[in-house]
Amino acid sequence: MHETFLRRAIQLAVENVEQGRGGPFGAVVVIDNEIVAEGSNLVTAHADPTAHAEIVAIRNACARLRRHDLRGAVLYSSCEPCPMCLAAIYWARLDAFYYAADRHAAAGAGFDDTFLYQQIPLDDASRALPSRRLLPAEGAAPFRAWLDSESKIPY
Amino acid sequence: MHETFLRRAIQLAVENVEQGRGGPFGAVVVIDNEIVAEGSNLVTAHADPTAHAEIVAIRNACARLRRHDLRGAVLYSSCEPCPMCLAAIYWARLDAFYYAADRHAAAGAGFDDTFLYQQIPLDDASRALPSRRLLPAEGAAPFRAWLDSESKIPY
Repeated sequence: MHETFLRRAIQLAVENVEQGRGGPFGAVVVIDNEIVAEGSNLVTAHADPTAHAEIVAIRNACARLRRHDLRGAVLYSSCEPCPMCLAAIYWARLDAFYYAADRHAAAGAGFDDTFLYQQIPLDDASRALPSRRLLPAEGAAPFRAWLDSESKIPY
Repeated sequence: MHETFLRRAIQLAVENVEQGRGGPFGAVVVIDNEIVAEGSNLVTAHADPTAHAEIVAIRNACARLRRHDLRGAVLYSSCEPCPMCLAAIYWARLDAFYYAADRHAAAGAGFDDTFLYQQIPLDDASRALPSRRLLPAEGAAPFRAWLDSESKIPY
């Protein structure tokens, strides 16, 4: 069954390119051997840099199921998820994921996947993207409010 | 000016908790010393595990500007971005980002940020989340279609 779902993700990726909709990536979310949501790369089509196939599929699955937690679901992606999508898969609490092409194939087609896997583990000062921590004491206020809140919904 | 924008992100985070909307995180996107978009954590409110403050702010900025590329913009976040949001900041081509609380403060309040920074760099076999590569040869088809496409919009 894994191969069947993965082939559907690959088909979505090819169709996305052929129809001029966006990048060569597709993904499906499966529960109990049934596809509950699909996604393809819509970065340029929707002017949304976060609209990778996996994120689109996860958002579609959550919208359909009306929950932010996809425990019990599996994701199939035409390509190895980039760090954004990999972390999204964790946050969505998916059970597992399967993919076909790897990050190096994506890099070979002009995408930043390998570069991002190198950048994420670095310290602020070592990354290509400038960043800096400021106001560390004031930054504690939201977490104090959260820990004190009696109406919060942990996730 | 950095402190002013960062304080606005922290204020959004506190208000988000106080109003019972979601997690203790806020972010703003700034261009030419003007806030063009704001975001707060809407994971539970929107049933969307990808709706972190930074992603919401980036998506709002892109929707307002009608482009997927935020070159020339800076992001301010109440907390250090998780790997999903950090990679999204790269994909959006933001110039820089500033933050107040760090990943350890987030972890202390019950969020997975530190854990995810540990997981992302690992091999498939070493991660807590099961994953596997299948159909590597078939996975090349979308990239072939992309490289052959004359109508593609690279990003």
